[in-house]
Amino acid sequence: MPPAEFQRLGRETSDWIADYLASVRTFPVFPSLKPGSIRDALPAEAPDFGDSMDEILADFRSVVVPGLNHWNHPAFYGYFSVTASGPGILGEMLTAALNVNAMVWRSSPVATELEDVTTDWLRALLGLPQPFEGVINDTASSSTLYALAAARGVAYPEVQEDGLFGLPRGRVYASEQAHSSVEKAVMAMGFGRRGYRTVPTNSRFEMDVDALSETIRRDVDEGVRPVAVVATLGTTSTASIDPVGEVAAVAREHGAWLHVDAAYGGPAAMLPELRSRFAGWGEADSVVVNPHKWLFTPIDCSVLFCRRPDELVRAFSLVPEYLSSSEAASARSLMDYGVSLGRRFRSLKLWFVLRYFGRQGLVARIRHHIELARELASWIEAEPGWSVLAPVELAAVAFRYTSEAGGSHTDELNHAILERVNASGAAFITHTSLNGQTVLRVAVGNIKTTREDVEQLWTLLREVAESVEAEGAGAASTGS
Amino acid sequence: MPPAEFQRLGRETSDWIADYLASVRTFPVFPSLKPGSIRDALPAEAPDFGDSMDEILADFRSVVVPGLNHWNHPAFYGYFSVTASGPGILGEMLTAALNVNAMVWRSSPVATELEDVTTDWLRALLGLPQPFEGVINDTASSSTLYALAAARGVAYPEVQEDGLFGLPRGRVYASEQAHSSVEKAVMAMGFGRRGYRTVPTNSRFEMDVDALSETIRRDVDEGVRPVAVVATLGTTSTASIDPVGEVAAVAREHGAWLHVDAAYGGPAAMLPELRSRFAGWGEADSVVVNPHKWLFTPIDCSVLFCRRPDELVRAFSLVPEYLSSSEAASARSLMDYGVSLGRRFRSLKLWFVLRYFGRQGLVARIRHHIELARELASWIEAEPGWSVLAPVELAAVAFRYTSEAGGSHTDELNHAILERVNASGAAFITHTSLNGQTVLRVAVGNIKTTREDVEQLWTLLREVAESVEAEGAGAASTGS
Repeated sequence: MPPAEFQRLGRETSDWIADYLASVRTFPVFPSLKPGSIRDALPAEAPDFGDSMDEILADFRSVVVPGLNHWNHPAFYGYFSVTASGPGILGEMLTAALNVNAMVWRSSPVATELEDVTTDWLRALLGLPQPFEGVINDTASSSTLYALAAARGVAYPEVQEDGLFGLPRGRVYASEQAHSSVEKAVMAMGFGRRGYRTVPTNSRFEMDVDALSETIRRDVDEGVRPVAVVATLGTTSTASIDPVGEVAAVAREHGAWLHVDAAYGGPAAMLPELRSRFAGWGEADSVVVNPHKWLFTPIDCSVLFCRRPDELVRAFSLVPEYLSSSEAASARSLMDYGVSLGRRFRSLKLWFVLRYFGRQGLVARIRHHIELARELASWIEAEPGWSVLAPVELAAVAFRYTSEAGGSHTDELNHAILERVNASGAAFITHTSLNGQTVLRVAVGNIKTTREDVEQLWTLLREVAESVEAEGAGAASTGS
Repeated sequence: MPPAEFQRLGRETSDWIADYLASVRTFPVFPSLKPGSIRDALPAEAPDFGDSMDEILADFRSVVVPGLNHWNHPAFYGYFSVTASGPGILGEMLTAALNVNAMVWRSSPVATELEDVTTDWLRALLGLPQPFEGVINDTASSSTLYALAAARGVAYPEVQEDGLFGLPRGRVYASEQAHSSVEKAVMAMGFGRRGYRTVPTNSRFEMDVDALSETIRRDVDEGVRPVAVVATLGTTSTASIDPVGEVAAVAREHGAWLHVDAAYGGPAAMLPELRSRFAGWGEADSVVVNPHKWLFTPIDCSVLFCRRPDELVRAFSLVPEYLSSSEAASARSLMDYGVSLGRRFRSLKLWFVLRYFGRQGLVARIRHHIELARELASWIEAEPGWSVLAPVELAAVAFRYTSEAGGSHTDELNHAILERVNASGAAFITHTSLNGQTVLRVAVGNIKTTREDVEQLWTLLREVAESVEAEGAGAASTGS
C-alpha cells in the first residue's frame, strides 16, 4: 500500500474509530440476525484480483458493523464487561505497525524489557510481593495451563523426561465455581477429567476450605498426588472470592502448587478497602490477572505472575540453535515461559494504559463499577419478585426474577427475560446457573458505563419481566 | 479519553504509522544497546496520577522506537521475515476498537462467521480439500499443541476421562529439522521428551521416510503407540519440504495422526509451479499455516485446518452454563477448538489482506520473494569461500563463509559476521546449526524488500567477512 494511501486510509479509519467511540451508544448492543446470515452474504472465495481498500472499508461498515455484539458499548453487561480504552487502542495501532515478536531479547529488546517493566508495575499496584515475576500471555486459559504445567513438573520431577505414562494419578483441585479454563488446562496437560476435582462452595459461592482439606486428605490416602489447588478471586458466575489465605495453608500442607485465578478480580486488589479480601494471595505460586478484563486494555492481555519462575521455565524451555543468542544470560527469553513462541508486543498497550490512568485513575474507575453493581443489587433486592443470589463484592450481580404467581417455570421465565433484553438492543446480559437454577448476570466493567445506564437497564429488566409474564412467554421459551 | 482527544491522537498516531512505513529504511534494523538499558531508563513504578497521552507518545518515540528490532523493515531477514501490511494494520486498528471476543457465536456473531469465511477462503487458495475446517489461533505453537491433543484423544480414547496415567507409552515423530514448538507441545501434553522422537533427514534436510517407517516399526514392536507424525513444509533452518505424500502413507499404515507444520511454507502452495511439492498434504489430519508469517498479516494469526474437527472439539469442548447458548447447534463455538477461551477478532485483518491483495497479488509477492532468495543463493554459490548449504525451494537461504586460510575457526568466523552485520544496523540476519556447523540464514519475506536490498545485503556480507577475517576477529568471537 503506497504511503500516501495508508496516510489517507489510516486517518479515515482512525476517524471512524473516534466516531465509533463517541457514538457507540447509538448502536444496538446485540445484533438482530440469524446464525449463518453473514457468511451467506459473503462471496464463497477470495477475489482473484485485489479489491480497493475503500471498497473493503465500505463492506466493513455495511457487513461487519451490523453483525457485531458491541463489547465496547456501555450497556454491554455480558460475561465480564471489558473496555478498549483510548490509550489501549493507540497502543494496539502501534503494535500492529511495528509487528515485532518478543520471543527472545534479541528478537525484540524493547518488547522484552517493557514486559519486565509493565508487569512489575502491575505487581506493585496489586500489592503482590517482589518475588513474583510477570509474563504476558493471550488469555487466562493459557496462563492457567502454563502455571499448572509448572505445578505438574514440581509434583513429578520425572515428567519432563518420561511423561505421565506409568506415573501415579495426580489431581488438581478448584471450587465448583472455578472457571472452565481450569478443567480445560487439566485435560490439555494429560490428566483427564479424573485428574480434576471440584470442591463445594459455601452459600456465598466461596470455596469450602474444610471440604478441600477433606477431599485432598482422602485422595492422598488413596495414593493420588495433590498437584495443584486453584483459588478463584472473582468467580465467573458471582464474582465470589475464595478465602485464599486458608486455601494457601491447605495447599502448603500437602505440598501442592497454589494457582490463583484472579483474571477478573485481580485489579480490585488495588483498592485499599478491598485489599484484605486478597490476604494470602501473595503466598501463591502463581497468580493470573487479565488487564484485558478490568484494566481497560484491549483483548488480549493476560499477566501470569509466578513466584517460582524457574519452574515455569523448566516446564517450557527448549532452546533450538536458531533461537539461541548471547543475550540469553543477561535478559529473559520470554518464549521460555509458555507454549506460544510468537509473542505480540502486548506490553505497549498496558504501558500506555497504566501511565494514562495512573494508579488513582484506575482505582477510581474500578471503585465506581463496584458501586454501580452494588446499587443495582440494592434496587433488585428491594423489588418484589426479584432477588439477588450472591453477595456483590466486585462488579457482577447474579439475580433472578420469580413469577408472582409462583409456578415451576421460573427458569424459562428468566431465559425469556434474557432473550428479550438482548433482542431489544438496549443492553446485553448473560446468564449462569446457581444451585441448578437459571440466574441472570450483569457485569459492570465498561469505562463509559454510567449510573444512568444502569438505571435504564433496571427499568428495562422490570418492563421486560412484566411483559414476558403478561404474555406467559416464559413457558414457551426454548432457553438460551 | 474524551472523543475529541482520541480523534486528535488517533490521527497523530496514524500519521506516525504512515511516516514510519514510508521511512522505515532510515532506521537501523537492530538497535545498538545492552540488555537492561531500557528497563533501567524507566521509572520503577507506575505513576500515581496519570500522565498525558502526549507525554506518553513522546516517550514512545524517544524510548521505545530506539529499542526496536524493526521486523517491518525491508532489511529484516532474521527468523522468518514477516510483514504488517497496510490493510493488515487497518484491520488491527479496528479490531482493537471493537474489542470483541469470539468465544461463541452469541459473544460475537460476525467474528465467528468471518472466521468461517476467511479460513475457508484460505483453504481454497491453498488447494486443501473441502473437509478441512479452519480456526484461527495466536501462533503455530498453539495450533500444533491443539492438533496433537486431538491426536492423543484418537490414540487413547480413554485419555479425556482418565488421563495418561497408567497408559502405555505413546510417541510423536518429526524430523530432526522440525520446529521446537512440536517438542514443546509434546511436553505440554504430558508425553515428556521420551514421547518425542526425531527422524534423520536426507542431504536436503527433508525427512527420511524410510527412517521414519523403521523407527515407528521398532517402537510398535516395543509396545510404544505411534500417536502422531509431524511433517514440516518449510523447516525453520533451511525451509526444506518434507515429502508429505510419503509421510502420509507411513502415518496411515500405523494409524497415526498426520499433522503438517506449514506455518511458514503453506502460502507457497498458492503458486502453481510449487503445488506439486505439497502433493499429499490434503491427506493430513491437520495442517497449520500462519498468515502472520508469509501472508502480510500482522502478528498474531495462525490458521489450524483440521480434517477431523470433531476430534479437536472432543479434546477441548467443555461448555459451562455461563457460556451455553441456543445458537450452539447452528453455529460453531470457536472456544471449543482449543485452550484459549478469549479469542480476538483476528479474521478481520485476514479478510482485509486476502481481499486487498487478491490471489494474484499474493502469488506475485510470494513468487518474488522466492526469486530474490534464489538469486542471493546463486551469488553466494558463485563466490569463492562462500557456500549455500541447502537447496533454496522457498525464500530462506542457509549459507556459510569459510576462511580462505581454512582453519578450525569457521564457526566463530560466521558468528562474528552475524554480529557485525547486525551491529551495522543495515540488515538483521540470524543463524542456525546444520550438521553441527554454524550457518547463517537469510529469510526474504518483507513486502517492501527489493532486489536492491538483497544486493546491498550481499555486499555487506562480503565486506564484513573480509574485515572480520583481516582482523582475525572470528577467533575472538564469543558466539551469538
